[in-house]
Amino acid sequence: MEKLRVAVLGATGYTGAELLRLLVGHPHVEITEVVGHSKKGALLEDVLPALRGHRGLPKHVSEFDPDRIAQKADCVFSCLPHGASGSCVAELYRRGRVVLDLSGDFRLKDPLLHSKWYGHDPDPEVRQVAVYGLPELFREKIRMARVVALPGCYPTASILPIAPLLEDGLIEANPIIIDAKSGVSGAGREPNARTHYPEVSEGLRAYKVAGEHRHIPEIEAILSQVTRTPVQLCFTPHLVPMNRGILASIYVRPKEGATVEKICQCVKRRYAESPFVEVLTPGACPDTLWIRGTNRVLLSYTIDERSGWLVCQSAIDNLVKGAGGQAIQCMNCIYGYGEGEGLEFLSAWP
Amino acid sequence: MEKLRVAVLGATGYTGAELLRLLVGHPHVEITEVVGHSKKGALLEDVLPALRGHRGLPKHVSEFDPDRIAQKADCVFSCLPHGASGSCVAELYRRGRVVLDLSGDFRLKDPLLHSKWYGHDPDPEVRQVAVYGLPELFREKIRMARVVALPGCYPTASILPIAPLLEDGLIEANPIIIDAKSGVSGAGREPNARTHYPEVSEGLRAYKVAGEHRHIPEIEAILSQVTRTPVQLCFTPHLVPMNRGILASIYVRPKEGATVEKICQCVKRRYAESPFVEVLTPGACPDTLWIRGTNRVLLSYTIDERSGWLVCQSAIDNLVKGAGGQAIQCMNCIYGYGEGEGLEFLSAWP
Amino acid sequence: MEKLRVAVLGATGYTGAELLRLLVGHPHVEITEVVGHSKKGALLEDVLPALRGHRGLPKHVSEFDPDRIAQKADCVFSCLPHGASGSCVAELYRRGRVVLDLSGDFRLKDPLLHSKWYGHDPDPEVRQVAVYGLPELFREKIRMARVVALPGCYPTASILPIAPLLEDGLIEANPIIIDAKSGVSGAGREPNARTHYPEVSEGLRAYKVAGEHRHIPEIEAILSQVTRTPVQLCFTPHLVPMNRGILASIYVRPKEGATVEKICQCVKRRYAESPFVEVLTPGACPDTLWIRGTNRVLLSYTIDERSGWLVCQSAIDNLVKGAGGQAIQCMNCIYGYGEGEGLEFLSAWP
Amino acid sequence: MEKLRVAVLGATGYTGAELLRLLVGHPHVEITEVVGHSKKGALLEDVLPALRGHRGLPKHVSEFDPDRIAQKADCVFSCLPHGASGSCVAELYRRGRVVLDLSGDFRLKDPLLHSKWYGHDPDPEVRQVAVYGLPELFREKIRMARVVALPGCYPTASILPIAPLLEDGLIEANPIIIDAKSGVSGAGREPNARTHYPEVSEGLRAYKVAGEHRHIPEIEAILSQVTRTPVQLCFTPHLVPMNRGILASIYVRPKEGATVEKICQCVKRRYAESPFVEVLTPGACPDTLWIRGTNRVLLSYTIDERSGWLVCQSAIDNLVKGAGGQAIQCMNCIYGYGEGEGLEFLSAWP
Repeated sequence: MEKLRVAVLGATGYTGAELLRLLVGHPHVEITEVVGHSKKGALLEDVLPALRGHRGLPKHVSEFDPDRIAQKADCVFSCLPHGASGSCVAELYRRGRVVLDLSGDFRLKDPLLHSKWYGHDPDPEVRQVAVYGLPELFREKIRMARVVALPGCYPTASILPIAPLLEDGLIEANPIIIDAKSGVSGAGREPNARTHYPEVSEGLRAYKVAGEHRHIPEIEAILSQVTRTPVQLCFTPHLVPMNRGILASIYVRPKEGATVEKICQCVKRRYAESPFVEVLTPGACPDTLWIRGTNRVLLSYTIDERSGWLVCQSAIDNLVKGAGGQAIQCMNCIYGYGEGEGLEFLSAWP
Repeated sequence: MEKLRVAVLGATGYTGAELLRLLVGHPHVEITEVVGHSKKGALLEDVLPALRGHRGLPKHVSEFDPDRIAQKADCVFSCLPHGASGSCVAELYRRGRVVLDLSGDFRLKDPLLHSKWYGHDPDPEVRQVAVYGLPELFREKIRMARVVALPGCYPTASILPIAPLLEDGLIEANPIIIDAKSGVSGAGREPNARTHYPEVSEGLRAYKVAGEHRHIPEIEAILSQVTRTPVQLCFTPHLVPMNRGILASIYVRPKEGATVEKICQCVKRRYAESPFVEVLTPGACPDTLWIRGTNRVLLSYTIDERSGWLVCQSAIDNLVKGAGGQAIQCMNCIYGYGEGEGLEFLSAWP
Repeated sequence: MEKLRVAVLGATGYTGAELLRLLVGHPHVEITEVVGHSKKGALLEDVLPALRGHRGLPKHVSEFDPDRIAQKADCVFSCLPHGASGSCVAELYRRGRVVLDLSGDFRLKDPLLHSKWYGHDPDPEVRQVAVYGLPELFREKIRMARVVALPGCYPTASILPIAPLLEDGLIEANPIIIDAKSGVSGAGREPNARTHYPEVSEGLRAYKVAGEHRHIPEIEAILSQVTRTPVQLCFTPHLVPMNRGILASIYVRPKEGATVEKICQCVKRRYAESPFVEVLTPGACPDTLWIRGTNRVLLSYTIDERSGWLVCQSAIDNLVKGAGGQAIQCMNCIYGYGEGEGLEFLSAWP
Repeated sequence: MEKLRVAVLGATGYTGAELLRLLVGHPHVEITEVVGHSKKGALLEDVLPALRGHRGLPKHVSEFDPDRIAQKADCVFSCLPHGASGSCVAELYRRGRVVLDLSGDFRLKDPLLHSKWYGHDPDPEVRQVAVYGLPELFREKIRMARVVALPGCYPTASILPIAPLLEDGLIEANPIIIDAKSGVSGAGREPNARTHYPEVSEGLRAYKVAGEHRHIPEIEAILSQVTRTPVQLCFTPHLVPMNRGILASIYVRPKEGATVEKICQCVKRRYAESPFVEVLTPGACPDTLWIRGTNRVLLSYTIDERSGWLVCQSAIDNLVKGAGGQAIQCMNCIYGYGEGEGLEFLSAWP
């Protein structure tokens, strides 16, 4: 079988590095271009030392040129930051390429909401055609997509555990409290005071509390869509001293008659065709360490009989299921490969 | 001034070690006995290498003998595990000694509640006289106490931020959701599979979800007492890859008219005489790293205007304000020293 | 092509878990038995949660029965501890199976040396036939082997950088000082006081200083063999707060005329057919994080002009190149697969 | 007793923060000025959140003005970076103030050596009067000093274990191999790619191998001075994923007849008056975690009988004994306080 030619834009950050790691292991893919504006011309192995020595990669980082990229690649992944990504995505889309955009530029369907949270709309037309890249919920649409807006890492961890319960009316749409905890790679590769090693190690803190994080409108929009009722949630992200992983503890109210058995069954049924989702037994607690480096999603549901709350837990790797792995999963959907192709490995534990 | 002679029972774990560290720096204290059943006769510096070389400590770990302890010490700290602590506390109390019990044996006033969560009641009489050792709320009672039951680490981090708001009717008594995160020293010094380095580092998980943790009835009892209405909370503890620190993110409903300014003022007023509590500006996020090794409590309050929840954050060091430091703070209250005596140092940051 | 049927003994520790992770990704292998004495009958996913949900694995942990294992597997990996491993290896060898022994039971060819460092000789006959499983140096012998004694993790990191230099006479055989640093997974899965999270995190220490570590005679024996002169080295292992990785800094004396260029060329030539070894440019410093979870070996050589010492650095992952990956590499040699088959993935960095 | 008025220049980095932490606990000191060029006018507690709420500190960060500083302080600590520190030190020295310089600007007595490693000589006159601030070796000189050049962190950990052995002729002056490992706070507070959390956590690497580090000439100069023979050493620094601590493993040749007992006795005798140095029993391994946050130095000596090397180990906290604590120790010497005044606390372990 002819290999699919792919290019990666913004390849020199953590998301790009992870995407390249996963793509070199994909049986149907050939990486033809690795684009990194600030590092153009550099040896890829100098920029991403963990990729050193692999023969399946271009030797050099190249510059963005939409004509050349469109000529050399069938499918393009953009790991550019929001703001920068949108226009590159649009240029490649207009040249007939399939584009998987890992930035936030087309995640929000509503242009006004986008403007409020991100500013300038990079391309209203692409916004309309972009499909939200969460295969567990939107597999059919993704198969037809030309542009996929990959979910944020927190939205992936937040939407998957509760969307089926909202769809089936097993929980109330309000209140939803999401207490999410992330490893530091989620903050990107650019060093800053908040991610300087000595100020993270042995410390723990929340950030952007009380409605400040850009992932909130994204989670709300998707949940409102699946539940056909407006959802407003309370979301608190935390920075945890570890490299990878998101653990979300989500507090919701089960509706009358919604036992934990019904809840687990509902989720298992909803994700029966989803190779990466696994529902643990009630009371069990997923650990991000168990799925480090993989595309897997561990879910768990427990009802607190005393207070009546349903505690939902989800664990993902922010750079894989929360970014590069999910993008490849979408690519697999679009090109008719097995959904898990190239992603079916286990975690290097511990 | 004559020094206060103190003894420490169960000194060979992390709580004991921390208490000894703090006591050797206390200007009015002389440590006369360091008791550790399993290590009796050992050199203290072999058991607790971080104490090596300090002249203010007994050289050897001794065995528990209530008569000898009562003779050699005016005031005794018990860091024994619950179950073992209660009877030793009782024996010393009966010999007229002031006892500060860091175990869970006398935290719950209600004997039935104690039986349900801890089993056998070690001493019903001592239970009646024991005072809950949270000076910020019960300073006056502690001054008169002969036996102090020191709060658990999670209860300290959970009660302090919301008790004033419940007292003043600024928040609803239900729901209260506490999402708490702890460093690993909170699990004690005994090695086990859950605290083995490779299974903690780079991982994150909840445990005892949905009403399983022994600290729940303790928090509820104290909050019910201050608010004079039954409180039932949803509490989820998490284990974070760091040695020390608890961060609690608490979600409550502000009552009509309770602005964030009123909330902060209420808390500041309540703790005006409390040297270790500090209220940050709304939106600020306390970091456990800032108060590592200290007796301080950082609090922060933010209202999520979109969802209407009040997000309370509190950060403490589980071994200091959550254990040994708080015990010394109580001792200071009982003996009329300045409440912060021996505890007014800053964190070795970072 | 018919798949190779493999069994793994002692599968419930870290080495076993890693071996299973790698084997399920190997294109020519089918795992038919997973043996774990202490966990027999348990669900494998309960014992090794990171393997949960993979279809390529037996569901249950089984008991050791040499006849059944010999019937169900062509090739057996033993991850049993030394002492326990040797007799099981011998039983399977006598039943005609190829055995890859990851324990220390047959690493030392000299029975007297074995007795001195490990005690009882489990099987003198197997000792004679066992081949030391370092493919970079002993590829040809391994191809013919029926029993392979896999090197220890420290010996792998210590021997590879300097063996070619000793063979070619570019460095003196004495002195050799090896200052080695290891992540905590090297200490195994059994919890103990030395590997309890709070006593490792934020701390650093050496252990077994000055000739105490069992890997010393192993390194010396192999180096003495390649250099045909007795080697006696000074070896200091250190425990570093990280899960995986060994970094060895090795101090040797270059012989007259041995420039760093000649040294690098010698090593590159020696390992020209070795897909996992890479020599960095002089002055560059390998980072264990770059090769975490992979079978790769990063080497670097720098001469300190001032003091005349050659500083050799090597980085490996102790559980992969130092254990399970190297075992699969040997299996590949024996069965005529590509030496890198199933091992050619990159690190999930960071 | 009148308090000593002290000022701290460059107070907004880690060394400055640590110095302030220690100074506020010193019984004879009053902090009158906290100078930080880039943060002038800021609230100190915004810049150094761990100092928040302490009443013994100025509220604001001020600008450098030598006249004002000289008027308001008797004794000035400079935590400015080298290059910037020297001229400020000189200005205050000329105004008659005692200055403790924690930068590298006056550590090397030889101006040519300084030029080679640091560039421009900030002040030849001050270089001549500056005393090397290692009280264990130069206590008498420090007592008379007006300017103290505090040792680097690696030199402190490297010189202390072997200087007495060189003085007494118990070891050869060559070779000396120092394999040193440091926590990340040693790299300062300025974020960069090398100290970004995800690129440090779970990784280990050397840096500046083979004679590149500025601390080398400093160690050599002091050791050459005490041994009255030129010393040239091989020094390799490593970056370890932890916040604080230096562990140095030093390999030297004992002279004929130098038993480990004689070696330990020599060191104990040399440091008999030094309250912070402790010699462990041979074979014991100091852990940086045991002395985290303290001014202590743990030393250990073991002879490898097989290879004949003496393995010296030393552990210090790079920000305390390697910086701020040592500066206060020197201040204590100059002003006639007890040498350990304000520094006699234990580590918050674990």
